[in-house]
Amino acid sequence: IASKLPEVGTTIFTRMSALAREHRALNLSQGFPDFPAPLALREALARHSLEGHNQYAPMTGEPALRTQVAAQLQRFRDVSPDPVAEITIVPGATAGIFCAIMALVREGDEVVLLDPCYDSYEPAVRLAGGRAVHVPLVDGSFAIDWDLLGNALSSRTRMIVINSPHNPTGAVLSHADMEELQDIAELENLLVLSDEVYEHLLYDGRQHHSVLQYPALRQRSVAVFSFGKTYGVTGWKTGYCVAPPALTAELRKVHQYNCFVGVTPVQLALADFMAAEPDYPATLAAFYQRKRDLFNHALEGSRFTLRPSAGTYFQLLDYGAISDAPDHQLCEQWTVEHGIASIPISPFYQAPPQQHCLRFCFAKQDEQLLRAAEVLCKI
Amino acid sequence: IASKLPEVGTTIFTRMSALAREHRALNLSQGFPDFPAPLALREALARHSLEGHNQYAPMTGEPALRTQVAAQLQRFRDVSPDPVAEITIVPGATAGIFCAIMALVREGDEVVLLDPCYDSYEPAVRLAGGRAVHVPLVDGSFAIDWDLLGNALSSRTRMIVINSPHNPTGAVLSHADMEELQDIAELENLLVLSDEVYEHLLYDGRQHHSVLQYPALRQRSVAVFSFGKTYGVTGWKTGYCVAPPALTAELRKVHQYNCFVGVTPVQLALADFMAAEPDYPATLAAFYQRKRDLFNHALEGSRFTLRPSAGTYFQLLDYGAISDAPDHQLCEQWTVEHGIASIPISPFYQAPPQQHCLRFCFAKQDEQLLRAAEVLCKI
Ligand SMILES: CSCCC(=O)C(=O)O
Ligand SMILES: CSCCC(=O)C(=O)O
Repeated sequence: IASKLPEVGTTIFTRMSALAREHRALNLSQGFPDFPAPLALREALARHSLEGHNQYAPMTGEPALRTQVAAQLQRFRDVSPDPVAEITIVPGATAGIFCAIMALVREGDEVVLLDPCYDSYEPAVRLAGGRAVHVPLVDGSFAIDWDLLGNALSSRTRMIVINSPHNPTGAVLSHADMEELQDIAELENLLVLSDEVYEHLLYDGRQHHSVLQYPALRQRSVAVFSFGKTYGVTGWKTGYCVAPPALTAELRKVHQYNCFVGVTPVQLALADFMAAEPDYPATLAAFYQRKRDLFNHALEGSRFTLRPSAGTYFQLLDYGAISDAPDHQLCEQWTVEHGIASIPISPFYQAPPQQHCLRFCFAKQDEQLLRAAEVLCKI
Repeated sequence: IASKLPEVGTTIFTRMSALAREHRALNLSQGFPDFPAPLALREALARHSLEGHNQYAPMTGEPALRTQVAAQLQRFRDVSPDPVAEITIVPGATAGIFCAIMALVREGDEVVLLDPCYDSYEPAVRLAGGRAVHVPLVDGSFAIDWDLLGNALSSRTRMIVINSPHNPTGAVLSHADMEELQDIAELENLLVLSDEVYEHLLYDGRQHHSVLQYPALRQRSVAVFSFGKTYGVTGWKTGYCVAPPALTAELRKVHQYNCFVGVTPVQLALADFMAAEPDYPATLAAFYQRKRDLFNHALEGSRFTLRPSAGTYFQLLDYGAISDAPDHQLCEQWTVEHGIASIPISPFYQAPPQQHCLRFCFAKQDEQLLRAAEVLCKI
């Protein structure tokens, strides 16, 4: 069997979570909360399952959930996509990203990825017959160097993938960035795939800027969101895509032959919860900022260098003062020897990164964060 | 936007279910039960959600569920695939099929499809860069014409897709068919994708023959199964793939970047139910045969011609004595005018079929089946 993805192994998230389990390490690696989701949400899933809502949902997603999504986009982003023609429920944001790339990237197309970036983008581009063009973010700040990005464009460039708030660095795009993006996308006639799964997790008063809020961008973008991230149920594997009708039509062609639909009782439960608690997402920034600060404060006196994460529930720690070892090696070593699991950032890069950084997920119980910091302070 | 799938519209299942809803028609179109799944299964989902099992499952699926799958394959098929290296839980059989094709079909490969066939196979082949070669099943019996199939092979043939019990016809492959397939696959060095989602629904004493039971076939096959079909929860969108380690490794590379994982509480609920009720699948054939017979018996005196379905929960009715109209036209007309929705079989064909057949799903409450038959008898 000649592999179509010869260099692909098991994702770093799977490997680190498995290693953490094996060594009973504090698991600050894969991005998921270790505390329960809202009770009303769990109860809603139980209710829909018991009441017998267990058969196929409509291919585009339960209408009640698409309606709630539209209401929420109105509330938080002041935009009004059409729930029938522009919103598609997908079995997780990763699936939404995959479908968008598979539907829109053609043989020979180039897709600009900003390194570091989430590890699913490039394999999806390759399977679609395209080629990923990697442009590094600025060392240290992880901002976009727009000149560098401009130089990476060619007549074959089809799409730029952006991700704000940014996994794994926590960097956030500014309004000025979005305007740059809008100008370039229009000038060069590019599509934009915008991974906005951490849209509600911005700190220190920062605002999220969605591609949906920039009219010219919105016409050429697929924006991908995650109920799993927002409602703390990553194992429910449910997200949604927002795109203009023409792009949505293509996305759905792939979606309907890929997974066809997502899970019905999960979709209905999310719709109920969103209707009952429309302000829930607005509580998240303060909730997670407190956790970030708890963790970072407890690391004072450690030998790590950090700049507080601007968004997501990830904090990068620079270990340059402690070790020269490659991040993946150190990461495994600390899981085994110190019982603390994180995520190296090198798998998010094509070329090896300049940074000596590990990513820690702070969507964990306070006690776990404090224990983790205690261990890290001794390293 | 130049479409990668220009001729693809919304699937017939989505369209007929929507039309049925709109006209409040008896819905014997899309394949799902209109009666509740086992209470213990629904309770298990409620329990796992409430207990907080709502974060990412391992990429290959919950170990407890893979273990149950292995036990069931042992029990029903007398085969022992390795739950770690050979069984992968996927978000629905459709997703399993998509991942298998995407992982194994390369640019320029040919894939043999037997018409009529499930409508997701060809778009997946096309997105993978391959070309579908359509071989018709024998008119009327819907058996495989092995000579015809042999003639369709070329040096570029990479894979044959089979489906037994067969959607939409209910035809079932015999042991002799499986031996033919095994010989051809070995001789021509082909991969086999075996869609076995209706594995427990065979009637009149027929046995299911799985590719897993033919050692030489098993080495070159991906077999795809559906918990949704077996446990009557199509909206749970959970299935599994069984393949030798080398094929599984490739399949998982796509799966992990496509959906990454399926839904955690759903997987745990299925594992619990399978452990508690290991014989449940063995009850299905009698249960659905009774429904088939109820429906077919009530159609005596109608102007339809039928041969009783050998498997699946679908019954084809030949309307040749009633009308010359194309099946999709008649299907819509009867939904609107007679309030009875079915599925035309032409969307399962590349070339228009000889048959004048509509497909009726008999996974419905007795009362619905009797009301449907009553309407059909008057047409
Ligand atoms: C699909 S698991 C990885 C996604 C995530 O949450 C992470 O970056 O840890
Ligand atoms: C994914 S919906 C279609 C599958 C099915 O059950 C059918 O053939 O009706």
